[in-house]
Amino acid sequence: MSRWRSKRWQRRMSLKLDFNYMMSEFLGEANGISADDLRGLREVAVKLHQELSEGRAGGNIGFYDLPYDQDTVEAIEKFAGKAIKQYENVVLLGIGGSSLGPRALHSALAGGQWANMADYKGRGKIPRFFFADNIDPDTFARILGFAEPRKTLFLVVTKSGTTAETMSQFLIVRDMLERKLGKNKVAKHLVAVTDAQNGRLRNVADREGLTNFIIPANVGGRFSIFTPVGLLPAALMGIDIRQLLAGAAAMDGRTKECDLHTNPAYVAAALLFLADRTHGRNIDVMFSYSDALFEVADWFRQLWAESLGKKHSLSGKDVFCGLTPVSALGVTDQHSQTQLYMEGPFDKVTIFLAVEQFGQSMPIPTLYDGLPDLHYLGGHSLEELFQAERKATEYAMLQAGRPSMTITVPEVNPFTLGQLLYMLEVQTAFAGGLYNINPFDQPGVELGKKLTYGMMGRQGFEQVREDYANRQPKQDKYEI
Amino acid sequence: MSRWRSKRWQRRMSLKLDFNYMMSEFLGEANGISADDLRGLREVAVKLHQELSEGRAGGNIGFYDLPYDQDTVEAIEKFAGKAIKQYENVVLLGIGGSSLGPRALHSALAGGQWANMADYKGRGKIPRFFFADNIDPDTFARILGFAEPRKTLFLVVTKSGTTAETMSQFLIVRDMLERKLGKNKVAKHLVAVTDAQNGRLRNVADREGLTNFIIPANVGGRFSIFTPVGLLPAALMGIDIRQLLAGAAAMDGRTKECDLHTNPAYVAAALLFLADRTHGRNIDVMFSYSDALFEVADWFRQLWAESLGKKHSLSGKDVFCGLTPVSALGVTDQHSQTQLYMEGPFDKVTIFLAVEQFGQSMPIPTLYDGLPDLHYLGGHSLEELFQAERKATEYAMLQAGRPSMTITVPEVNPFTLGQLLYMLEVQTAFAGGLYNINPFDQPGVELGKKLTYGMMGRQGFEQVREDYANRQPKQDKYEI
Repeated sequence: MSRWRSKRWQRRMSLKLDFNYMMSEFLGEANGISADDLRGLREVAVKLHQELSEGRAGGNIGFYDLPYDQDTVEAIEKFAGKAIKQYENVVLLGIGGSSLGPRALHSALAGGQWANMADYKGRGKIPRFFFADNIDPDTFARILGFAEPRKTLFLVVTKSGTTAETMSQFLIVRDMLERKLGKNKVAKHLVAVTDAQNGRLRNVADREGLTNFIIPANVGGRFSIFTPVGLLPAALMGIDIRQLLAGAAAMDGRTKECDLHTNPAYVAAALLFLADRTHGRNIDVMFSYSDALFEVADWFRQLWAESLGKKHSLSGKDVFCGLTPVSALGVTDQHSQTQLYMEGPFDKVTIFLAVEQFGQSMPIPTLYDGLPDLHYLGGHSLEELFQAERKATEYAMLQAGRPSMTITVPEVNPFTLGQLLYMLEVQTAFAGGLYNINPFDQPGVELGKKLTYGMMGRQGFEQVREDYANRQPKQDKYEI
Repeated sequence: MSRWRSKRWQRRMSLKLDFNYMMSEFLGEANGISADDLRGLREVAVKLHQELSEGRAGGNIGFYDLPYDQDTVEAIEKFAGKAIKQYENVVLLGIGGSSLGPRALHSALAGGQWANMADYKGRGKIPRFFFADNIDPDTFARILGFAEPRKTLFLVVTKSGTTAETMSQFLIVRDMLERKLGKNKVAKHLVAVTDAQNGRLRNVADREGLTNFIIPANVGGRFSIFTPVGLLPAALMGIDIRQLLAGAAAMDGRTKECDLHTNPAYVAAALLFLADRTHGRNIDVMFSYSDALFEVADWFRQLWAESLGKKHSLSGKDVFCGLTPVSALGVTDQHSQTQLYMEGPFDKVTIFLAVEQFGQSMPIPTLYDGLPDLHYLGGHSLEELFQAERKATEYAMLQAGRPSMTITVPEVNPFTLGQLLYMLEVQTAFAGGLYNINPFDQPGVELGKKLTYGMMGRQGFEQVREDYANRQPKQDKYEI
């Protein structure tokens, strides 16, 4: 499935991190980070690196070694190779970490929003892809309207197997399949991606004999893009998952040493940490100058927010830390957000995503001789204007004392995507250490879940239900 | 075109603002806003209201009276009524304020991302709609690939007529139309929406005899949704623009009095201002529990960020103020952002968008008797779960000391959309006054524009070009 790629090609496709405009040499002492600030983190970095390496070696932190799981790759390729020919639609039932990764891959490498149109050129014989990652009834009804059961494969993706949203959708689909196709056809249209042992989806998959793929117990949802959570959908989109993993492995090679000069994941984490701690910049804008990479920013939003937004430090102290990730699209959001980024509070760092080489060239013709302020555009190209605006925005922000760094992807392909996603995972794990919090849990969502269970009448949540029913009543004067 | 709607129906469709969970009665003194805090703004509110009313009456602030421009409505309906039958595709060339409004309307009322699929049910005979609001060459090439010139209407939308992105796209399209269809057919496929007198697009429209619609001089891009910028695309999407304007007019009625108890736009602005000033909450999350309304949050992002993100106060003092708008989608982002919202810094206010009545009902079947923690979902519906999760999130956030307010839309239709969009515009104008800044300008984007012009070789920008060429060189050690 995978084309062989030379070392030279791989080097040329190597992702770059440019952090000049984070540094005090460019921003001045008041707004920049000094080489000394970075050096000051050296000791703690060594300690953290050792802890993370031990967590990896001891099997507690699972995401690091995912690029090397050949058995999973083969199983997925075997299944997807057949399924691609069999089904016209794939519907992914999954939310959060079960959907954001596949969405990012679809958008970057498989046509994204355009791919489901009848006259889309470039999909070939790949099924249409639908993400059922919300429970808005109007949307879910629409998706089911598009996906004729006979021609559709439903992926049910939840690690815990208890996610109320996904399991509700599953119940609706399960029931519909039986009614429309008959009981013995149901299993043919359902694939489960879940834990090896635990959870209701595991029970169901086992007793109904569903094809299923395993999410390793030591990999959390937001770090799961290189498990079957990401790889199975990717393969069904026709993406070369070996190249994706080769990219991740290449970045693993670059992030294995604890060096705050050469390890791009550690450098990025350290700079964002310092910008927050020393200058109070607690909003991180991922500004993608590429439509294809825009949903990577959305995937990163979960990774960064859920990993670092924590009430307690590792020692149990109240810290209420966290960086708020914001996703923005260049140049589009220059006409929406740049005014704020240039003149608003000094509370942001921008991470530009840049692409060197696009797939298409769009030359701008030379017209309207008599109108010089229109004529000047001719002879250039859209991609030239695109790059010029990115550089102009970066430089204008520097002039206004606003720090930024730029991650450059030579071109958007599975190998570069693999690097980018893996780098951001390593960056997040390391940043968790700098903040002295646990980047792998999410205790803050429990209360909301319990309240929902209570309202929906789940056993064992009667007390929450009662507490909620007895809540302080709202006041009419505050509702208009 | 428009169905007559009874007063009773209009009352039933009236938007509600619930701000209980902003107030100290619920959040305590430490996190809430007191009735006294609100009362403290009364005097300044009266003054601001008078200034805004004068700006309206004097014709300086144009957006207020847009709901009453019958001539424009008629001209648009006349044109769109024919065009809808003539063209299979509409491509909107426009960015920022020229695109975000139409996008929000398309998503809420015309099928959004689903509407261009061949088997989409519900569009009827309406053209497909493409938003060319970025200059990524891969995307623009794709859109042109979908839009066969003979069957396509191109809307060119820029108030200044000098927007480099839109005018570059225009040049490409203009040239292609002439090459493919011949010179005398070009005008049939182009419509200009621009200023009545100024700018290059006005020159071009006049000399080539393009159909054109006018953006009033006293309405800025981000306040232009009720001008032809929003209304023309809306009519081409088959949206009832009279109902949209009726909704806006209804909200005008509710926001005409300066009363911090009953004017929802003023109350919302005052609360968000106070939450920032008294508690440092300078991030406003618009959390839409409706897929249809999600892009309203994106439209609001521009309105709020560009209007309030200002370096200078009205008296010229450096203030660097601004609230950072963040858009989130419920329940999807509960699995991505809620951890941060619950446990991270106390720097946010959440504005929930709620919908009372959805178009579809999705009952959850009762299956798996033996698995109680799956079985409990049966007998409920997806919409019930959706609402329960919104309420659970709102209440969990209250418990964690996180303020929120909720805007409830009885159902998503043109009349309720008109109310919502108009309310947010009035809220923004009033908030600008509270911050003592000018909400109608955007000086911070000038430097980036000039740099771009310089790089692209536009006349008069030679000095900027030279300055940029002579910038401090980046250092190799900061690029890895």
